[in-house]
Amino acid sequence: MNLDGLREATRRQMPEKRWQHTLGVVDTAIALAKRFDGDPVKAELAALLHDYSKAWAIDRMEGIIREQKLPPELLIYDKELWHAHVGAWAVETEHGITDEEILDAIRYHTSGRENMTKLDKIVCLADYIEPGRDYPGVDKIRELAKSNVEEALIAAFDSTIKLLIERGKRVFPLTVYTRNDLIMQFKKSKNIENGG
Amino acid sequence: MNLDGLREATRRQMPEKRWQHTLGVVDTAIALAKRFDGDPVKAELAALLHDYSKAWAIDRMEGIIREQKLPPELLIYDKELWHAHVGAWAVETEHGITDEEILDAIRYHTSGRENMTKLDKIVCLADYIEPGRDYPGVDKIRELAKSNVEEALIAAFDSTIKLLIERGKRVFPLTVYTRNDLIMQFKKSKNIENGG
Repeated sequence: MNLDGLREATRRQMPEKRWQHTLGVVDTAIALAKRFDGDPVKAELAALLHDYSKAWAIDRMEGIIREQKLPPELLIYDKELWHAHVGAWAVETEHGITDEEILDAIRYHTSGRENMTKLDKIVCLADYIEPGRDYPGVDKIRELAKSNVEEALIAAFDSTIKLLIERGKRVFPLTVYTRNDLIMQFKKSKNIENGG
Repeated sequence: MNLDGLREATRRQMPEKRWQHTLGVVDTAIALAKRFDGDPVKAELAALLHDYSKAWAIDRMEGIIREQKLPPELLIYDKELWHAHVGAWAVETEHGITDEEILDAIRYHTSGRENMTKLDKIVCLADYIEPGRDYPGVDKIRELAKSNVEEALIAAFDSTIKLLIERGKRVFPLTVYTRNDLIMQFKKSKNIENGG
């Protein structure tokens, strides 16, 4: 299927508002890929597909997680996390996307993971800062995203964790591992910059 | 060794300020044990010993973690976490404390753990709210501690995680697992209270 076909198929999975968000993530991911020496073609495709299953019914997603043996710990955490893994499965199954880099960027765009690839980082960060996003701290994250992906992502995960704490909700452990790993990466890059 | 002997031995491990904190934790732990149907005798002993190794040199603690095969992941996280595991090892080795409930309460007083025992909770919470403590949110935690240990501990871990985020520091994953588990315990207890 060509990109136009995928675009139409993706648009049909979601309401207009989510589609507008998707277009924002696509534009932002391409810009970030260009800025940080990533692959704009892969960034566009992964961004287009990142929320493929976001608007799917909870029961449908739960069934897929169980039947397809996606990570079972998803089921004991927030439903907000499900669509990322379900979406990667869906675009592979329904559209024959087999590029693991693309599938991983979809799979981990909400939680992140340790050792995120550049594409993982670009899609995840684009999702946080596309022009339609409006939440406390987003402008600071956009500012950081002009110069450093890791620093911007740390601030992005900070905002998510703080929000969950304020709402008395559990924090998905992988998000904490991701943030810890990004802090180490960021420190290392600063040390190299300073010749230390 | 009797309790007076342990008291003197513990006092010798730390500067006066840390000893005053220890005495505050002892009093608070006894009060919490009485309030929440815990064991005041065990609470007193675990509280007395909880910071046994807190003032020990970093190199000494690192050596013990390596030689005694204490959890190696400690070494990649904040040194603040080391004294809890080292302390449990030290009071067992130096003073023949073998009660695993006491040793666990010392071992997990900083991070907590999933399925904390009542004694774990009492010592951990007492450490957060003893009268000498002064940090943003401590009064709210003290207030919650009048009626619900889990709710107070969730607020306590919230304050720790928020502080770490503000300082750009990594969060020890076990602390997140602990908080998640306490949220589930608290919800369950509220459902039972409401007959649901």
